[in-house]
Amino acid sequence: MSAEIICVGTELLLGNILNSNSQYLAIELAKLGIPHYYQTVVGDNPQRLKHVIEIASQRAEILIFTGGLGPTPDDLTCETIADVFGVPLVERPEIIEDIARKFQQRNRTMTPSNRKQALIPKGAEILPNPTGTAPGIIWQPRPGLTIFTFPGVPSEMQRMWEETAVPYLKSQGWGKEIIYSRMLKFWGIGESALAEKVAAYLKLPNPTVAPYASKGEVKLRVSAKATSETEAQELIAPVEKQLQEIAGLDYYGADDDTLASVVGHSLRKTGETLSVAESCTGGGLGQMLTEVSGSSDYFWGGIISYDNSVKERLLGVNPEDLAKFGAVSTTVAEQMALGVRSRLGTSWGLSITGIAGPGGGTQTKPVGLVYIGLAGPNGVESFEYRFGTGRSRSFVRHLSACTALDLLRRKLLTR
Amino acid sequence: MSAEIICVGTELLLGNILNSNSQYLAIELAKLGIPHYYQTVVGDNPQRLKHVIEIASQRAEILIFTGGLGPTPDDLTCETIADVFGVPLVERPEIIEDIARKFQQRNRTMTPSNRKQALIPKGAEILPNPTGTAPGIIWQPRPGLTIFTFPGVPSEMQRMWEETAVPYLKSQGWGKEIIYSRMLKFWGIGESALAEKVAAYLKLPNPTVAPYASKGEVKLRVSAKATSETEAQELIAPVEKQLQEIAGLDYYGADDDTLASVVGHSLRKTGETLSVAESCTGGGLGQMLTEVSGSSDYFWGGIISYDNSVKERLLGVNPEDLAKFGAVSTTVAEQMALGVRSRLGTSWGLSITGIAGPGGGTQTKPVGLVYIGLAGPNGVESFEYRFGTGRSRSFVRHLSACTALDLLRRKLLTR
Repeated sequence: MSAEIICVGTELLLGNILNSNSQYLAIELAKLGIPHYYQTVVGDNPQRLKHVIEIASQRAEILIFTGGLGPTPDDLTCETIADVFGVPLVERPEIIEDIARKFQQRNRTMTPSNRKQALIPKGAEILPNPTGTAPGIIWQPRPGLTIFTFPGVPSEMQRMWEETAVPYLKSQGWGKEIIYSRMLKFWGIGESALAEKVAAYLKLPNPTVAPYASKGEVKLRVSAKATSETEAQELIAPVEKQLQEIAGLDYYGADDDTLASVVGHSLRKTGETLSVAESCTGGGLGQMLTEVSGSSDYFWGGIISYDNSVKERLLGVNPEDLAKFGAVSTTVAEQMALGVRSRLGTSWGLSITGIAGPGGGTQTKPVGLVYIGLAGPNGVESFEYRFGTGRSRSFVRHLSACTALDLLRRKLLTR
Repeated sequence: MSAEIICVGTELLLGNILNSNSQYLAIELAKLGIPHYYQTVVGDNPQRLKHVIEIASQRAEILIFTGGLGPTPDDLTCETIADVFGVPLVERPEIIEDIARKFQQRNRTMTPSNRKQALIPKGAEILPNPTGTAPGIIWQPRPGLTIFTFPGVPSEMQRMWEETAVPYLKSQGWGKEIIYSRMLKFWGIGESALAEKVAAYLKLPNPTVAPYASKGEVKLRVSAKATSETEAQELIAPVEKQLQEIAGLDYYGADDDTLASVVGHSLRKTGETLSVAESCTGGGLGQMLTEVSGSSDYFWGGIISYDNSVKERLLGVNPEDLAKFGAVSTTVAEQMALGVRSRLGTSWGLSITGIAGPGGGTQTKPVGLVYIGLAGPNGVESFEYRFGTGRSRSFVRHLSACTALDLLRRKLLTR
């Protein structure tokens, strides 16, 4: 008994988008203990899709389709599946009602082409789509074969998978042996350095420990095979604790934790507040902080001082210092942090000024040079970083905002 | 005549890595004008790999394999391919020499298992790997079928593709006809509505036109087959112009254009400047604007007024209005836009205040309710949006910032 993932869309064959749906579903199938041996990508072409369905239905018992459920004429997944199994499509009024309601909520008018999305194979169950207009199906066209369809939009697909497909598969007996993982997150240490520190753990059989690196962050995935989440957690807990101890302050959180959320957690505990002054990140630090629901408890706001006039007028940065040291300097970073803290009346003020590139670098102040200022109850500090001249504007900005949050995180833990 | 991409690796089936090789090869095949209709992922299992090769060799004339060329016992691509076509493997001394030399350069000792990498099907050409130890092959096991193998490591695969596979394919006559695409971008119209407006174009043979939707944005990909980029551009240009005319103001740009970059382009032309006041987006609007290199020419900065005290103190929002109408109201949006415009001294002030969720919604002010204020030389306006209660915090914030940019874009084009 195995599953097969079939992603439908010419945009995948043209390389317009990366196939992240396959990876998501692969991880999810592993979590439920459902083996899967093949993934196929095929374009929006009914003959070729038919060919793929015929092959897959001979070698797998669960077929999972993504893509091709939209309202346009090239979206053909549902009708092609029905065609392969010789079953007619029927219009389901509850789908039309749902689509009409969603259009109304968004003050848009439903178009006739959306009616197409209400056609599903006779006998199939509707797999509801809480956010988008395209519902999926759960269908057994013959005994021993179950078909799931999902739209290609990852956020819609994932929510439908979690809310409907997973409970359904569990009700069919899957998920009894599960793989449960915790993702431990680290900032301020490289992947190879962390891997060397925890080398002995990378050979464990259960739980397994595997390192990953992405966007300046290093992660260790700790995965246990067990018959229940509780049993898996019991296997993981002691290993996780040891890994945290080895990493010390470089460990910052697990799973859904972000640098912004752990900073927020610390601030909330002491009832302190935070404001930010951003130059090269242009709002990205504030955005990270406010991505956390409930951040208004401790984050009051900030000043985006992209132009020097804003640094002077709204943050009180000294024009002479700006002229003498330049906007990208330790002095200006400190004055920005002090300025935002006093003007907004918060416990802490965090500032960033730097050269994100690709232009604007000089011999002495290259692209990637960033100063971070931190003003708090006991005064102000500043820190210099050189993130490298070869990195993209977007990555330098990302590293700058994360590093600023990490500095505050360490300060709150060690003061 | 078409190609098929076959990625071999259990790590892909477990979701440990994202299949970026498929996307890279898909783009490259399109550039060379080589059609490709299927992509398959299969694990490190000889029976299943054999099954995949048998199917693929019946429906494609060029098979491109990635992965499974390493020195460990589970790397089986080369021997399985040879097995399918009944050809023995032969050890190639030049490969052993190359591997030995690379180990020496890195001060490491070659292991016996690396000898395995020197075994390739009899009659196959070596596809050299300049950086790693695993070479690929170019092989015609029978007339009309060409097989390429590459290691799974993207950097190695890409260099081998560029340096050897592309010249080989060009020598076989490929690359004379190329596929060139332009991605046209739209905001403020749904996918189905746009598809209906341009329905006639979706049936064109060359260039083809296909709609996509992602994160609130709708795109039309216009792709032309031609013998050169210039010829393709000439085929695309008139269709692109007609599509733009049909879409009117809903069309905002193409390819690398973003809402922020086209707003910036308009502002730069007139020498005007912009500042922002953000509540629920918390800096996200500023971040989008400053993601554009050179945005300091027209974007001066902003105020993140997450807490009401900041709205009052730094933006001059009237406390009585805040109490009477609430922070999420047309009045407050307008006062925020006026406040930031006057305090920063810019031509335009753009504000956002709303309920991003998941908490904070009420019957009259549900999650997804957002007000956008726009203050300019001729006064202030505000706009109400209801992005729906079912959408994530992150998506509501994204839609809010994009919609604000779109409002300003339209204003600058139509005043």
